[in-house]
Amino acid sequence: MDLLSIKDPSFLKSLSQQELEELSGDIRKFLIETLSKTGGHIGPNLGVVELTIALHKCFDSPKDKILWDVGHQSYVHKILTGRAGQFGTLRQYKGLCGFPKMVESEHDVWETGHSSTSLSAAMGMAIARDVKKEDSFIIPVIGDGALTGGMALEALNHIGHEQKDMIVVLNDNEMSIAPNVGALHNVLGRLRTAGKYQWVKDELEYILKKIPAVGGKLTVTAERVKDSLKYLFVSGMFFEEMGFTYLGPIDGHDYNDLFDNIQYAKKTEGPVILHVITKKGKGFQPAETDTKGTWHGTGPYKMDSGDLIKPVNAPPAWSSLVSETVRRLAREDERIVAITPAMPVGSKLEGFASEFPDRMFDVGIAEQHAATVSAGLATQGMKPFLAIYSTFLQRAYDQVLHDICRQNLNVFIGIDRAGLVGADGETHQGVFDISFMRHLPNMVLMMPKDENEGQHMVNTAINYDDGPIALRFPRGNGLGVKMDKDLKTIPIGEWEVLREGSDSAILTFGTTIPMALEAAEQLEKQGISVKVVNARFIKPLDEKMLSGIMGENMPILTIEEAVLQGGFGSAVLEFAHDHGFNDVTIERIGIPDKFIEHGSVKELLKEIGMTTENVVDRIHSMTPKKQKRA
Amino acid sequence: MDLLSIKDPSFLKSLSQQELEELSGDIRKFLIETLSKTGGHIGPNLGVVELTIALHKCFDSPKDKILWDVGHQSYVHKILTGRAGQFGTLRQYKGLCGFPKMVESEHDVWETGHSSTSLSAAMGMAIARDVKKEDSFIIPVIGDGALTGGMALEALNHIGHEQKDMIVVLNDNEMSIAPNVGALHNVLGRLRTAGKYQWVKDELEYILKKIPAVGGKLTVTAERVKDSLKYLFVSGMFFEEMGFTYLGPIDGHDYNDLFDNIQYAKKTEGPVILHVITKKGKGFQPAETDTKGTWHGTGPYKMDSGDLIKPVNAPPAWSSLVSETVRRLAREDERIVAITPAMPVGSKLEGFASEFPDRMFDVGIAEQHAATVSAGLATQGMKPFLAIYSTFLQRAYDQVLHDICRQNLNVFIGIDRAGLVGADGETHQGVFDISFMRHLPNMVLMMPKDENEGQHMVNTAINYDDGPIALRFPRGNGLGVKMDKDLKTIPIGEWEVLREGSDSAILTFGTTIPMALEAAEQLEKQGISVKVVNARFIKPLDEKMLSGIMGENMPILTIEEAVLQGGFGSAVLEFAHDHGFNDVTIERIGIPDKFIEHGSVKELLKEIGMTTENVVDRIHSMTPKKQKRA
Repeated sequence: MDLLSIKDPSFLKSLSQQELEELSGDIRKFLIETLSKTGGHIGPNLGVVELTIALHKCFDSPKDKILWDVGHQSYVHKILTGRAGQFGTLRQYKGLCGFPKMVESEHDVWETGHSSTSLSAAMGMAIARDVKKEDSFIIPVIGDGALTGGMALEALNHIGHEQKDMIVVLNDNEMSIAPNVGALHNVLGRLRTAGKYQWVKDELEYILKKIPAVGGKLTVTAERVKDSLKYLFVSGMFFEEMGFTYLGPIDGHDYNDLFDNIQYAKKTEGPVILHVITKKGKGFQPAETDTKGTWHGTGPYKMDSGDLIKPVNAPPAWSSLVSETVRRLAREDERIVAITPAMPVGSKLEGFASEFPDRMFDVGIAEQHAATVSAGLATQGMKPFLAIYSTFLQRAYDQVLHDICRQNLNVFIGIDRAGLVGADGETHQGVFDISFMRHLPNMVLMMPKDENEGQHMVNTAINYDDGPIALRFPRGNGLGVKMDKDLKTIPIGEWEVLREGSDSAILTFGTTIPMALEAAEQLEKQGISVKVVNARFIKPLDEKMLSGIMGENMPILTIEEAVLQGGFGSAVLEFAHDHGFNDVTIERIGIPDKFIEHGSVKELLKEIGMTTENVVDRIHSMTPKKQKRA
Repeated sequence: MDLLSIKDPSFLKSLSQQELEELSGDIRKFLIETLSKTGGHIGPNLGVVELTIALHKCFDSPKDKILWDVGHQSYVHKILTGRAGQFGTLRQYKGLCGFPKMVESEHDVWETGHSSTSLSAAMGMAIARDVKKEDSFIIPVIGDGALTGGMALEALNHIGHEQKDMIVVLNDNEMSIAPNVGALHNVLGRLRTAGKYQWVKDELEYILKKIPAVGGKLTVTAERVKDSLKYLFVSGMFFEEMGFTYLGPIDGHDYNDLFDNIQYAKKTEGPVILHVITKKGKGFQPAETDTKGTWHGTGPYKMDSGDLIKPVNAPPAWSSLVSETVRRLAREDERIVAITPAMPVGSKLEGFASEFPDRMFDVGIAEQHAATVSAGLATQGMKPFLAIYSTFLQRAYDQVLHDICRQNLNVFIGIDRAGLVGADGETHQGVFDISFMRHLPNMVLMMPKDENEGQHMVNTAINYDDGPIALRFPRGNGLGVKMDKDLKTIPIGEWEVLREGSDSAILTFGTTIPMALEAAEQLEKQGISVKVVNARFIKPLDEKMLSGIMGENMPILTIEEAVLQGGFGSAVLEFAHDHGFNDVTIERIGIPDKFIEHGSVKELLKEIGMTTENVVDRIHSMTPKKQKRA
């Protein structure tokens, strides 16, 4: 059918099963085609075609509330709710968001991006429904990977206790982003192979109610016998223990199986787990046979061959540079252990893992645990390398503060995807870490100007034994600079002058250094001499250099690809006013006090006003005399 | 015996059971006596006397590592490791810490304060042990309440998966701080009443190994039969499903039961759960019969009667003022729902709970879930009041950012215990919230000068429908001011001039206002006229008033009982430099970049230099001309 003609999911009600099958095929074809041009989360979405159609057929959205955990698997939902026409702009500036978004549709009742929030949100909605005495179904859809996140488990515990009506769809594809980790995964594995017994269970319950309590030495009561038999035949005991009715496993690509179980769940009181088995990448050979997570989310690709279209001869990715340098050092330094919360691929730790299988731990989607495992390791004299994305480090704020910094432990945090990340948008921008880490006592925070300095900073971090140290680095590739063969250590807190100048100074670090140098060059031609400093240590500041610059009373412009409130520029302001440099002109460029949506990093920087042009203008207005001279 | 003579736990090895019983009695007597004078966590410690003695008798600390989750139950451990003599200074300035502290003893291998960290830390230690090929036991001791914290569940999942050798002691007193919440609690309840069957289990395992696989329609394999029978007799299926060997329930006050099970656990490979049932307050009547959590932690009390020694006719506690005002408003406003992460007593929500049982949810120790449940409620037009301590809000940083602020939802966060908290010390100081919340887009953050303004701010928050709003208030009691009968709303972002002045200005809020007013009065007498502003909105700032003050070029001093990095004073600096007030003298007083230990708030403020005297001095140095005139 013409997917562009879909306005809302109501048309599904009257479709025959054959029409539904045809629709599934059309949607798969559409996804494979459009994503080949835009890129996107192809694997997860191909896996949930039937599931999404079945949910929208059996429930009445938006009265009934479907919540997509993480949300990168919401493309089919977007198509069924009238957004097929916008897929050409997927994840692009001002285009369709790759995650649920309330402004796009009334069917997007909960916005996601980070994992494991859907059950808690669903619980809030269920409480609201019951307080208001309304009547609706609430259906969080959560993957098996997201289920290991602490807050999802907190929510399971609370929902099971309160016995709120709710249908939790456990979308089990045996692999979230990376192959799954954890004891829960083993539980699910057993369930998957167990067959389905919910019908048997009902009959059993009926019979068992007639068994009277029996006594004896082991106090075997009827209740216990019932539980035992239930376990024998039903096997969803883990969830049953948590207070849920367990239904499954269900074939997530079989409409009959889906409909039967959804209808059964609708009639069941209290919380239900619908355990649905899906195949990631279903219907697209390269994605379906992917075992490494390559097809979880991709850039554009060739539809026929399934080859990813990648820039040729790109400089090494930052993640790879950092992880491979850690690996290199780990050969000499047996204290090094790597920890990742479910991102071994994204953090490019495969090489480390294969060389040091006993010193690499993927703890699953569990950032809090990852941080405190690292702290525990450090108490024993180990040197943990915690590889984590900036946006996900937010989850471990308290653990970094309370466990790592407060005990001043030697944990090396590699903050990946720091700064704007582009297409993933506002839930994933790594722009808060400076502001939430700068006020942590004992923390050292640095960012390199290029990958050569990056490798030296890794070495610096590994050899730093006075407490926690964090290295933030951006998404994407390095600049392609020449790499030193031998690793050096950089003195903690020592900045570097990249360009001398006498009229004003730019202090910046990382990705915005090229912008500063370019601006300085243009300004030079206009008669303004600008000093450019690589302020590679965000904490501690280079107080000696700062005092020097402020002592000369040069106007200072700070630039950071991070939020301005409480950021690096604020640190410079604090220093100035704490040290009597009250009259120095200091201005800041950075990310304003709002959430930054998706788009290319270049487009976003332009929107924010972080451009060479703007830097030139600002320096002009800050150095008025020179302006006249020029 | 003479507890003061204990140097380390090695003396326990040779004690007979009768001597151990006597020791238990001596320790109980010592705790009841000394805590009657100092206050402290009496209930939890009386509950773990035998458990702690048994652990130190059966293991070799510090080679074997005992980790105390939360840590307020570590007093017996402190006595057994040579610190009885310091109990007179417990929780006092420069005295014995109420939590484990590495500088106090080599037996304190992990510092705690916040809940649910011990399993992750133990996992880190277990990895370190195995990488280093060392041999030691690792024994985290975690309460049933702390087990519901997300990171503890993340850790269980990971430990069960990795099958690391570890003995987890589940100290189950059926009530952590508040009566326990959650499905897990129900699981534990069933286990408690089930009796103990681990010996039976071993025999069963042996027999079951001989049963061959059986086929048939329901595919009942020997493995399944085994599992089923195990469940029938063992009942620790929840933990067994997670990959742990479950031992219990064990009587935590019976040495034989404890020794037998600990010895069995030591011989067991892989992770073990020792489910120990203890009685909080054991041996002290008032604490033992407490059902409300009053005797969890107390101030001084009368030993004979068990009456708490409290100040007479104190003004209302801040927690009570806020929660009771919410309750009052809830009578008219049906959107209001209260959420607490396990602190119904501390947050004084008992009144609300009894009047609105269907609109009050204690979600257990689960701050992340609490924040996102609130977000879910807000999406449905409800007005959630999230009552949470400042220090525990750290756990929900990402949820406040990603779920509440990013979706701009109408959640009212009541930030209790903001500022220095005193005796609980560095893990509990509520001094980071301004710095970790000020950079959150859409957030409104305020703090009242007294309880009358506090009640109006509660009303303001409830009636604010433009996004998230947070009210921070201190630990302890109000000032005793007259309360208005009718509630008002305060315009968002509007500050209040408390005292006019023309030579310089102090901007401050909340607890530090009296200090500012006192200083201004002294300075007046010395000829310096100081304007004092109640900067009750920390975000947004009162830009109009700020522009006015800065336009007059008055030197400005900011004072905040919070960390200086990225705090309120930094916001003022940012405003000045963003708006061309580069040459205004601005100085800041607040908490420096280090962790602040326990002590009375007054002593701590003095240590930090937050005193009237210092304020006077700083204003003097900032207004040099006036200084000469005076």
